[in-house]
Amino acid sequence: MFRITTFGESHGPAVGVVIDGIPGNLPVNLDHTQSWLNRRRPGQSGLTSPRSEEDRIECLSGLENGLTLGGPITLMARNTNRKPEDYADISRVIRPGHADLTARLKYGISAESGGGRFSARETLARVAAGSVAWQMLRRAMPDFDCCAWVQSVADIECPPQSEESLTRDMVDQSIVRCPDGEASARMAARVEEVKTAGDSVGGVIRCVVRGVPGGIGAPVFDKLEADLAKAMLSLPASKGFEIGSGFAGTRMKGSEHNDALTSIDGKITARSNRAGGTLGGISNGGNITFNVAFKPVSTIFMPQETVDKQGNPITFQPKTGRHDPCVLPRAVPMVEAMAVLVIADHWLRQRAQQPFIKI
Amino acid sequence: MFRITTFGESHGPAVGVVIDGIPGNLPVNLDHTQSWLNRRRPGQSGLTSPRSEEDRIECLSGLENGLTLGGPITLMARNTNRKPEDYADISRVIRPGHADLTARLKYGISAESGGGRFSARETLARVAAGSVAWQMLRRAMPDFDCCAWVQSVADIECPPQSEESLTRDMVDQSIVRCPDGEASARMAARVEEVKTAGDSVGGVIRCVVRGVPGGIGAPVFDKLEADLAKAMLSLPASKGFEIGSGFAGTRMKGSEHNDALTSIDGKITARSNRAGGTLGGISNGGNITFNVAFKPVSTIFMPQETVDKQGNPITFQPKTGRHDPCVLPRAVPMVEAMAVLVIADHWLRQRAQQPFIKI
Amino acid sequence: MFRITTFGESHGPAVGVVIDGIPGNLPVNLDHTQSWLNRRRPGQSGLTSPRSEEDRIECLSGLENGLTLGGPITLMARNTNRKPEDYADISRVIRPGHADLTARLKYGISAESGGGRFSARETLARVAAGSVAWQMLRRAMPDFDCCAWVQSVADIECPPQSEESLTRDMVDQSIVRCPDGEASARMAARVEEVKTAGDSVGGVIRCVVRGVPGGIGAPVFDKLEADLAKAMLSLPASKGFEIGSGFAGTRMKGSEHNDALTSIDGKITARSNRAGGTLGGISNGGNITFNVAFKPVSTIFMPQETVDKQGNPITFQPKTGRHDPCVLPRAVPMVEAMAVLVIADHWLRQRAQQPFIKI
Amino acid sequence: MFRITTFGESHGPAVGVVIDGIPGNLPVNLDHTQSWLNRRRPGQSGLTSPRSEEDRIECLSGLENGLTLGGPITLMARNTNRKPEDYADISRVIRPGHADLTARLKYGISAESGGGRFSARETLARVAAGSVAWQMLRRAMPDFDCCAWVQSVADIECPPQSEESLTRDMVDQSIVRCPDGEASARMAARVEEVKTAGDSVGGVIRCVVRGVPGGIGAPVFDKLEADLAKAMLSLPASKGFEIGSGFAGTRMKGSEHNDALTSIDGKITARSNRAGGTLGGISNGGNITFNVAFKPVSTIFMPQETVDKQGNPITFQPKTGRHDPCVLPRAVPMVEAMAVLVIADHWLRQRAQQPFIKI
Repeated sequence: MFRITTFGESHGPAVGVVIDGIPGNLPVNLDHTQSWLNRRRPGQSGLTSPRSEEDRIECLSGLENGLTLGGPITLMARNTNRKPEDYADISRVIRPGHADLTARLKYGISAESGGGRFSARETLARVAAGSVAWQMLRRAMPDFDCCAWVQSVADIECPPQSEESLTRDMVDQSIVRCPDGEASARMAARVEEVKTAGDSVGGVIRCVVRGVPGGIGAPVFDKLEADLAKAMLSLPASKGFEIGSGFAGTRMKGSEHNDALTSIDGKITARSNRAGGTLGGISNGGNITFNVAFKPVSTIFMPQETVDKQGNPITFQPKTGRHDPCVLPRAVPMVEAMAVLVIADHWLRQRAQQPFIKI
Repeated sequence: MFRITTFGESHGPAVGVVIDGIPGNLPVNLDHTQSWLNRRRPGQSGLTSPRSEEDRIECLSGLENGLTLGGPITLMARNTNRKPEDYADISRVIRPGHADLTARLKYGISAESGGGRFSARETLARVAAGSVAWQMLRRAMPDFDCCAWVQSVADIECPPQSEESLTRDMVDQSIVRCPDGEASARMAARVEEVKTAGDSVGGVIRCVVRGVPGGIGAPVFDKLEADLAKAMLSLPASKGFEIGSGFAGTRMKGSEHNDALTSIDGKITARSNRAGGTLGGISNGGNITFNVAFKPVSTIFMPQETVDKQGNPITFQPKTGRHDPCVLPRAVPMVEAMAVLVIADHWLRQRAQQPFIKI
Repeated sequence: MFRITTFGESHGPAVGVVIDGIPGNLPVNLDHTQSWLNRRRPGQSGLTSPRSEEDRIECLSGLENGLTLGGPITLMARNTNRKPEDYADISRVIRPGHADLTARLKYGISAESGGGRFSARETLARVAAGSVAWQMLRRAMPDFDCCAWVQSVADIECPPQSEESLTRDMVDQSIVRCPDGEASARMAARVEEVKTAGDSVGGVIRCVVRGVPGGIGAPVFDKLEADLAKAMLSLPASKGFEIGSGFAGTRMKGSEHNDALTSIDGKITARSNRAGGTLGGISNGGNITFNVAFKPVSTIFMPQETVDKQGNPITFQPKTGRHDPCVLPRAVPMVEAMAVLVIADHWLRQRAQQPFIKI
Repeated sequence: MFRITTFGESHGPAVGVVIDGIPGNLPVNLDHTQSWLNRRRPGQSGLTSPRSEEDRIECLSGLENGLTLGGPITLMARNTNRKPEDYADISRVIRPGHADLTARLKYGISAESGGGRFSARETLARVAAGSVAWQMLRRAMPDFDCCAWVQSVADIECPPQSEESLTRDMVDQSIVRCPDGEASARMAARVEEVKTAGDSVGGVIRCVVRGVPGGIGAPVFDKLEADLAKAMLSLPASKGFEIGSGFAGTRMKGSEHNDALTSIDGKITARSNRAGGTLGGISNGGNITFNVAFKPVSTIFMPQETVDKQGNPITFQPKTGRHDPCVLPRAVPMVEAMAVLVIADHWLRQRAQQPFIKI
C-alpha cells in the first residue's frame, strides 16, 4: 500500500523517488528528510567517499503548504558532482565484484561511467522516502522509532547495546556510527588502515524497531521478517539477514530458544526476545531486531585479475574514483529507511485488511 | 509472472495451490509432483512427525491429457489425518514461540486446533508448485537444477560438498538429508536425543541452484538475492538467510572477497564464487549458493512458563501432538521449491523485459 | 486488497476461487453464497442453457465454525454434468465468435471440449466471491447494496426504474430479470423466438450500487469507474460499459450535464446523477449507476461459414450443445458480483490509504 | 510488465512519469516524445485552453547517448504558466462536476488552485510514456500503429473512415482532429458557438490499433478489452467505452453478429470485425477498434447552483480560468497513448507467459 518507485543513475541528471499511498492532509517536513539524507551523503568524513554531493532535496509533487494532497510525493536530488573523467579507465573493463558483467548480461548494455542504476547512489531515494514514511508513522504512533548502528567492522565487534534507549543521536556521536566508544575507535583505525592500503572492509549493521503494534505482517509469503529480509538484501553490497536469534539460534534447543510469555498490565508480553519481535510472520508488540551483513566494497585500488569488455584478460588497478573503503557508516540510514518503509506498508495493509480491528 | 496462491489450514478440509502464469501446451507430470511431496510429508522416518498424511495430490484445473491449457493449475491435498482431540490441551493456552499470540493480535481469532494457516502444512502447496516450476524450467534449460541439504544440526556441521555434482538422490540417502555419512549419523543421534528429552533442535540448510542463465534478476528492489531472501524467510521457523560469503564475508577484505574474472571459451566466468552467483541483484551465470537458518521447533514436550487465553500465568506441558523434533530434513524440499519458484518468476520476467535479448 | 484468484475449466473437475484479504473473525454464511450461485446457474428456466449443474458450493479453507480465520477462503463447485460427447462436433472446428482461435494463438492449445478457461462457467467463482464481499461490506455498512436488472433485450427497453427502491427480489419476479412486467413479457417472447430459430440475442444490463460512502476510488489510473469498466468488460460476451450519462451524455452541453450541488443536513449532495456516483474517479456518496452491453451469444444452431482446425473452409452447424440463447438473465448476478468486488477492494484501500480519516 | 508511475499537480512544480520495464539498449528518440506532447498541449488553437505551456520534456533518468540503460526512464515537464490568481474565485467553492467534493471526501484536503492531481494536465505524463512504448513496439513490430480521431462532437458525427489507411497526419489536418472535412467544419463551428456562450460540449473518440499480433491478452480478469476499458475510463471526463460492435451490437442476433472465419495464405482471418479485434479477451490478429465517450467539460462560464466550502448554497460563475470548451481534440493523443501502453504491457506479458511460443 505504501509504494516507492525510484529512478536515476549515478551519473545521470538526477536521482529521485515517487511515493504513492501517502495519506492526504498529513504534515511532511522536508527539513527532516534533508537531515536523513545528510546522514547518508558522501563526504561526511575522511572515512567515506570524497564525492562531494550536497544531495539537496527538491519536491516536485504531492505537497502544498507543507501538507500532503494525497497524490504521489516526488523527491529528487540533482547529481552535481559528476566526473565521468574519473571513470575513464573503468569504462574499458569488467570490474570484479561489480555489476558490470551482469548489467550487460541482462540489458545488453551498461552505463559508461560509474555504476549507473547499480550505484549505491540510488539509495538516496530510499532514505528520502523513509523519512516520509517515518513522519506518517510517528503521527499515528508517537512511540514508533527505529535505530541502527554498526555492530561490527571486519572482526571488531560492538558490545551489546540497550535496545530500548539507544538513539540515532547517540549513534551519530561516532564517526563510524558504532555507539561504543572503544569499538568505534578501533573500527575507525581499521578503516583508515585498509583505505591506506587501497583495500576495503565489510561488517554487520544491527537495527532495532520500537513501538510497532502487534498484528502487523502476514502469515505466509509476506511475513514481516520476509519483507524485511527482502528489503535488506535489496541494499547494495548486502549478503545476509537474520532476525532475532538468527544463525546463532540454530545451535540452541527449543527449551532454550522459546521466549516465555507473561502478562503485564493485561498485555501478553515475551520475557525475552530471541524471536526478534515477530512470530509466524506477524509482529508480537515487542522490539523488532535484526542484523544485516555487508561485504567489503568491491572497488579497491589494488591490482586485480579480470577481463576487458572484449573478454581479454588484464590486470586492472583503478587510479582514481570516489568510493568508500567501508560502506557501513553510510549504510546505517539506508537500513533504517528500508525498515521504516516495510513497517509503513504493513501498517497500512493491516488497517485495510482488518477493518473491524482497531490499531 | 509466475504466481502461486496457496490456501488451507492444517486442520481444515484441504491444503492447495493455484499456479498462474504457466505456459500453455507444456507437459506436466503429476507423478513428479507427488514424488516431491513425498519428500516433504510427515511420517517419513522416526525423526519426523508421526502425523500420517498421504498428501495425495489432486489436480482440479489447468491440465488436459497431461498438457497445460494455459489457465491456472490447481493442486490440492485433502487433510485426512485430522485429530483435533490431540490438540485439546493446546487450545486453552498461548504457546511460547508459536503464532497463537500474533494470530489473535492480527485477526482477532486463532484456529481452535493446530496451527491453522500458520502450520508448516501450508508448505505442501509450495512444494507442489515448485515441482511444476521445475518442470517448466527444465524443458527450457536442461542444465537447470537445484539441490539442498542439511548443512548443520545444532553444532554438528556437514563438511563442504561438491556443489557441481551433488544430487537430490545422494542427499536422500541420509535420513536427515545430510550427504556426509559421518555427519549424518551424528545428526540423527542428536535428533533422537532431543526427541527423547521432549526437546527440539535447529540447524542450517544449504542450497545450490545450477544452470541459471546470466541476466536473471533486477538491479534494485527485486534483486534476485532479495527475492530469495524473502522466499526463504517466508518458510516457517526460518530466522536467517545469507548468499555466497554471507556473514563470514563481512570479515574479509575486498582484495580477498572479489571473485577474479576470466574468460573461458568466450564466456566471462568468475574463478571463485564468494558472490554466490549474483552481482548487483542479477545472476552471473554461475551457481547460486545460499544458506537458510532454522530455529529449533517451538513445540516441545517440556514444561514452559506461559499464559492461557485469558492471560493467566500457567505452566504448560503438551501431552500429545504430532510435531518434528527437528524440522531440517523436511525443510530441504521446501527450500528447493521456493528457490525454483523464485527463479521461474525471474526467468519469465527477463523474457518479458528483454524482448530483444535471447535467453 | 481484496483479491480473488479463480480457477477451473468448463469441462475440468471443478471451478473455484481463492479469496485473499478477507478480515478475520467475520461471520460468513455459505447459504447466502449458495443462494447467489443459484441465481447464476444454468437450467433455471426454459430460457437458459439446459446444462444441469447443481453448482453446490464446497468450502476448502478459511472458515471455522462459520467465522473467518483471516487466511484465504476457498470455494469450489465440482463439474458434475460434463458431457464431452456433446462437444465432439465442435472439437474439429474454429467456431466464429468464440475464443477457439485466440486460445490457440495465445497458448498453442485449446480445450478439447467446451470453452475451457474461456467458458462463462468461470463466473461461478466470481459470484461466490461476490457474496463473501457483500457480507463483509454489509457488516460494516448496513445501507450498502447492489441491484442489477435487464435493461434491454435486442431493441426491447425496460422503462426507467426507481434506483432507490428496486431490489433483487423484485427483479427475480421476472424470468428474464427485467422488473417491468410488460417489457419482461416481450423480452421472454423474443428469447423464445430466437431460441426456436437456433439464433441468439444480446442486450444491456443496468446496475445501481447504493450506500457506498464518499471518498472511495482513486484519482488517476485506478478510478472507481475505470475499475468498474475493467470488471464489466472482463465478463464473457460484454462489449461496452458506460457510467452515469455515458454515451448519451456526449450529446449534452456542460450546462445541462453538470449536477448542481446542494447541502442537505450538512451533507453536500448532488441534485441529479448524470455523474453516476463518481467524480474524478472517486465516489461522491450518491448511487453508482452504470450499463453493460452484452453481445448475442456466439453459439448458434444455424449454418455458419468458418474453418476447421487445419484451416480448411467448412460450413458448420452444431447439432447439440448446451448454450443460452440470451445470456442476460444469468449475467445479472455476475454484474452484481463484480461490482461488489470492486467496491470491496476500494473500500479496503481507502481504509489503508487514509488512516487519519474515518470511513 | 510495462509500468508507468505518474506524478504532479496542475499547479505544482512539475508533471512527470517514471517508466519501468523498458528493455535495455533500445533507441529512444525524445523528439518523437516531444512531438506527441505537442499534440496534447493547450494553446494549439482557438478551440482549446489558452493556458500557455510549452510542455518541454526533460529526461531525468534511463537514457545514455539515446539508448536505454534498462532502468526506469523518467520524463518531466515543468509547469511554467502557473497563475494561481486566475483560480482565486474557484478556491472558495465546490464546483459542480469537478472532483473538489470527492477529493475532500477522500483526502480531507483539496488543492487550493486548479485541479491538483485531478487535472487533465496529468495526462501529459501518459502521452510521454505512450511515445516510449510506441517506439519499443515499432522496433519489434514495424506494422504496429495506432490512430484515433474525433468521431462525434455533440450530435455531429464523422462518417465511417478507412481503418486500414487512416493516419495521425491525416487526422491532424483538422483543427478538431476529425478526418472528414465537412464534419470537421461543423464541429469547429459548434465548439466556437458553445465557447462564446461560456458552455461546453462532449463527444466520442474512435480509435483503431493495427498490427497487433494474435494471442495478446488474457482469458479472464485481464482481458485485453478489459484493460483497454480501464485505461480509457481512467482518462479525465470519459464516461463510456465500447469495443467492436459495442452497444449497437446488443441489438443484433448472433447470426448477424458473429464474424465468419476464412483462411488467407494459411492465416485464419475474420471476414468482418464486429468483435473489434479480440475474442475471449485475446487479440485475434485483426484491427482493434473501440470508442470512448467524453462528457462535456465541467468548467463552464455560466451561473450554476452549488455550495461553498462551508456548505452554504451559492450561485457560482467563474470569471476567468483556462479551460477547453471541448476536450475532444486534445483527448485524441491521450486515447492513443493509453491504447499503446496497454498493448505494450500485454505484449511483454505474452512474451513472458509463453516462452515456448514465438511472437
